[in-house]
Amino acid sequence: MKDFNFEVSTKILFGRNGLEKLSKEIKKHGSRVLLCYGGGSVKKTGLYDKVVENLKENDIFFVDMPGIEPNPRVESAIKGAALAKENNLDFILAVGGGSVIDCAKLISVAALTDANPWDIVIGKERVKSALPIGSILTIAATGSEMDKGSVITNLETKQKLGWGSPKVLPKFAIMNPEFTYTVPKYHTAAGTADIMSHTMENYFSVDDSAYLQDRFAEGILKTMIKFGPIAYNDPENYEARSNIMWANSWAINGLLATGKTQEWSVHAMEHELSAYYDITHGVGLALLTPNWLRHILDDETVEKVRTFGKNVFEIELTDDKFADANKAIDALEKFFKDEMHIPMSLREVGIDEEHLEEMASNTIKHKNGNVKGFKELSKEDVYEIYKMSL
Amino acid sequence: MKDFNFEVSTKILFGRNGLEKLSKEIKKHGSRVLLCYGGGSVKKTGLYDKVVENLKENDIFFVDMPGIEPNPRVESAIKGAALAKENNLDFILAVGGGSVIDCAKLISVAALTDANPWDIVIGKERVKSALPIGSILTIAATGSEMDKGSVITNLETKQKLGWGSPKVLPKFAIMNPEFTYTVPKYHTAAGTADIMSHTMENYFSVDDSAYLQDRFAEGILKTMIKFGPIAYNDPENYEARSNIMWANSWAINGLLATGKTQEWSVHAMEHELSAYYDITHGVGLALLTPNWLRHILDDETVEKVRTFGKNVFEIELTDDKFADANKAIDALEKFFKDEMHIPMSLREVGIDEEHLEEMASNTIKHKNGNVKGFKELSKEDVYEIYKMSL
Repeated sequence: MKDFNFEVSTKILFGRNGLEKLSKEIKKHGSRVLLCYGGGSVKKTGLYDKVVENLKENDIFFVDMPGIEPNPRVESAIKGAALAKENNLDFILAVGGGSVIDCAKLISVAALTDANPWDIVIGKERVKSALPIGSILTIAATGSEMDKGSVITNLETKQKLGWGSPKVLPKFAIMNPEFTYTVPKYHTAAGTADIMSHTMENYFSVDDSAYLQDRFAEGILKTMIKFGPIAYNDPENYEARSNIMWANSWAINGLLATGKTQEWSVHAMEHELSAYYDITHGVGLALLTPNWLRHILDDETVEKVRTFGKNVFEIELTDDKFADANKAIDALEKFFKDEMHIPMSLREVGIDEEHLEEMASNTIKHKNGNVKGFKELSKEDVYEIYKMSL
Repeated sequence: MKDFNFEVSTKILFGRNGLEKLSKEIKKHGSRVLLCYGGGSVKKTGLYDKVVENLKENDIFFVDMPGIEPNPRVESAIKGAALAKENNLDFILAVGGGSVIDCAKLISVAALTDANPWDIVIGKERVKSALPIGSILTIAATGSEMDKGSVITNLETKQKLGWGSPKVLPKFAIMNPEFTYTVPKYHTAAGTADIMSHTMENYFSVDDSAYLQDRFAEGILKTMIKFGPIAYNDPENYEARSNIMWANSWAINGLLATGKTQEWSVHAMEHELSAYYDITHGVGLALLTPNWLRHILDDETVEKVRTFGKNVFEIELTDDKFADANKAIDALEKFFKDEMHIPMSLREVGIDEEHLEEMASNTIKHKNGNVKGFKELSKEDVYEIYKMSL
């Protein structure tokens, strides 16, 4: 096990009644709120009204920041930071999913500096301070409510890049599984894939002796495989929505990463797809992952893939290691395709050969060299995986 | 899944070099330290000298508080609180295992009040404030370094009682698996049993739909079953010591308890043994648990015990549910006995019939009624389980 630090102080208010505590939690940190949300679904579901009612009843001043995009753009963070400065705000509340929270994180830093927010994303500007953030989660997918990371898209430069800082770890998250009842089937499926991908990016590594963490990862994967399809077919199933929601936080809050080497290879490849095509992140991850595993399967990686098959999909192991591992990969692909109804090829989501080579180059460029990790990937490897996924 | 709050902000510095950061972490919270430790093993191993060197190099004032007992007594907390008051100390550093940390927690509260520390333990005095606490862990067992609880013994009243408060959650824990290399075999075994017992107290419940949490629990149990015997036979095995140490924190820091009903039945029964006989906590837990499971096995509990057998001990399930469940219980008992060499009867640890009935009465008394949980236990049930364990 490698040395590590772990510190995740986000307060989680999980269950049916967390919203009642909203203003009480905000008041521990601030009193003038930037209320961030997305395309309006929180208004349709009535959640927005409940939030506003709670803020008003508790005399908390707020300014609206609607319209944050599914792949949040740097322009939204610029706009949010300007609103925060103009109105002298001291707290950022994100109501929505990972996109809204990720944008809130960049706003929270940008509100306290005159630097260009994109320079924060690309690491040119150091994060010195940030306004406190709280969230009310409405979709289980990115785990952003309990982690230090954020992903921001710049359509102008065709970049979708991750950045992070302990300073943007949210102070609290209100997690009511009922708020995810209205998530459409397609996004329930994409969220399931996203959570599983986070888990697998942590899980797939070679010989790092983080046995405990890998068993935790398998626990999350088993949870998703059990409840993903239930939530898909029965959207108001509390048991499924609650298990998925809580799994979502633990897939990426740092626990699975403790003591491990990792590189998030599939995310690196998927971010290029999203930067070029604005496709749904989870769908891109789902369709790339099985082909990535097939491409890197060799004597060094085969044991871990077999263990995955045995412990997650209950595949009975045989003397043929590679056959076992391929069964595991097939089971994963079949799960995404048949149980979660995810389009499992690039063509199905409108991506053809045109930019594949360019995106492969950019994957390497944005990693400043080959993608390290479970298996090192060159530009040629990435290009090959893209082609396998057509 | 039941509603819950989760907030565990302890900073973990895990690995070989955490001690170098000691003074830096202390200085975030204080500058005048009560240095708590136990019977002197930290002096023998040289750890004490390293701690003192680090404090002196960084100009941190400290006062020694040695001699904290294996089952820490209220008298030690009284003494520690007096030292803290006399010397105007503002930080409590615990170097040792759960006993030292548990005592440090009571000191941290008692140092800021004139109330009798025992009244804090029995809940007569509310915890209003506490000095910040940090720990350097030297044995993996109680998980006290990352939780809000503490267990204190009062030999005068023959009581060993748990209490807790979010205010005593340690600010940081320095966890170097190498510091546990010198833990004797007997205590390595008892620690293994303690960690597994915490996990099982969280795990065994009926139909609470906390599927994810139960998979996490199984991950910890599998980790202990794999690495407990390795640490026992090969005390300087870093892989084993590190996995056990990290599992130890997660067994009881609150994650496994999220969304679940629980009562900690075996702990309630074991605390009476320790209060009367001062036996090793983990040994008491190990020898009671299989008999507890046998006693409560019925139509309602059998499924969970079978699942435990399948997912933890890889027992193949048959059509005979009760046979499966009994195989699981036997496997657990055999693990403690044959792999961890734990004395698995009360007589072996010097306990006979004399006080059994009295201790059974006290178990109920200290729970203010029957012990709820996986299966409600009356005084007669507890007495029966004690007798089965003779």
